[in-house]
Amino acid sequence: MSRADARGSRRGGEDLGGEIIPGRRAVRELLLSGRRTVRHVLLARERAQSDVVDEIVDLAARADVPVRIVDGARIAREAQIETHQGVVALAAAVASTPIGDLCSAPDAFLVAFDGITDPRNLGAILRTAEVAGATGALLPRHRSAPLSPAAVKAAAGAIEHLRLCSVAGIANALDETARSDVWSVGIDADSSTSVADLTVADAPIVLVFGAEGRGMSRLVRERCDVVASIPMYGKIESLNVAAAAAIACSEVARVRHR
Amino acid sequence: MSRADARGSRRGGEDLGGEIIPGRRAVRELLLSGRRTVRHVLLARERAQSDVVDEIVDLAARADVPVRIVDGARIAREAQIETHQGVVALAAAVASTPIGDLCSAPDAFLVAFDGITDPRNLGAILRTAEVAGATGALLPRHRSAPLSPAAVKAAAGAIEHLRLCSVAGIANALDETARSDVWSVGIDADSSTSVADLTVADAPIVLVFGAEGRGMSRLVRERCDVVASIPMYGKIESLNVAAAAAIACSEVARVRHR
Repeated sequence: MSRADARGSRRGGEDLGGEIIPGRRAVRELLLSGRRTVRHVLLARERAQSDVVDEIVDLAARADVPVRIVDGARIAREAQIETHQGVVALAAAVASTPIGDLCSAPDAFLVAFDGITDPRNLGAILRTAEVAGATGALLPRHRSAPLSPAAVKAAAGAIEHLRLCSVAGIANALDETARSDVWSVGIDADSSTSVADLTVADAPIVLVFGAEGRGMSRLVRERCDVVASIPMYGKIESLNVAAAAAIACSEVARVRHR
Repeated sequence: MSRADARGSRRGGEDLGGEIIPGRRAVRELLLSGRRTVRHVLLARERAQSDVVDEIVDLAARADVPVRIVDGARIAREAQIETHQGVVALAAAVASTPIGDLCSAPDAFLVAFDGITDPRNLGAILRTAEVAGATGALLPRHRSAPLSPAAVKAAAGAIEHLRLCSVAGIANALDETARSDVWSVGIDADSSTSVADLTVADAPIVLVFGAEGRGMSRLVRERCDVVASIPMYGKIESLNVAAAAAIACSEVARVRHR
């Protein structure tokens, strides 16, 4: 595996990268889910005591994954980010699930990213979506954050449980979700419909989040069945996209579980 | 003003630091609110065109605040963070509002931080809270992220509108909020009460958020009138504290505005 691949480049949509897994929770979920071949786990000699790390050591032993104790500097080199918590794993790339498989689940709850370039926002949204019961995510191959180490760390293991689909673009992907009777809901500040009033929350659904600042592209916005906003009651009238996603996903979860 | 002060140290609770304001939205709200004396605004020569920057130039002119065009490197030095968007302002420190004033508002909706050390989380929560209609925040003087440039940037102007109170510790502060008939609600994963079922959301309330990973301290948890959790429906069962805060604040807003 070349270094470029490891950074999360996507070779023709066959896989989604994400081979470098930094952080305690991310590595724990990698081992728990058992979906990917794990090459090795590295632990920093100078790491803090942690129940999660103890669990990682147990899980790795049971799965015959080699664990090596190394210097923190080695971890930092391999993890490519500073916030690695003394733990990094190397694994097979995340496989792309066909979009039809994502759409055919009767409880389909998908999230889609239109131009989100900050890997920490991408990872944070995947994490929040998984906690809310999302089943999958659509990740565009271009003009979008890849599953870089920073994204994988921020996802805290969500990419090991969600089914992820690499798509050429979100606009075309929404044509496919529509054909599968999945409702598309764009989240945008400029809508008078509140996410709290979504009538399709308990139907198969895909929530679409636009770029930080600019929002969704015109083309994507036009393909959405519904555009909904997060209600704002303060003076600053702007939410970080990860916060907006947390609120939108929790609204869907609230309707589905009431 | 010494460099140490500028980083957000808090001299005996008199003020809360926050003198360095990086980022377009943060500087815009600083000038819009007019609560602080603004020394100057620096704009990077090589910044991108932006409506918000145009607005900043207008607002600064109207308030007689000097604006200087400088090299990006100078902005980076002054802002102390890389994500400054080509804009930084220097202003008087954020003043601390007495806790009694925060509690006496009939619509009091406060947030409190117990051991949150990541400045980006602190800023993100202040931003989310302000959007949800929060009126103020309690910030402990010790073992807590200060209003560093990273926190101020992440808050995106929320600190210019919320009333902030510097407190010695959250446990003692909750004694004072209780005496003022403000309900304290701790947010913790280990509670069977959901934030969606809070009965006190439309009463004067303070939401308490604990440290990343560890959660609230035992002492603080015991002082809370209610401890509530964010419902989780996935496999990873852990939310970033900023995401948890976004959901909790939006639940309070939902009840207050229905």
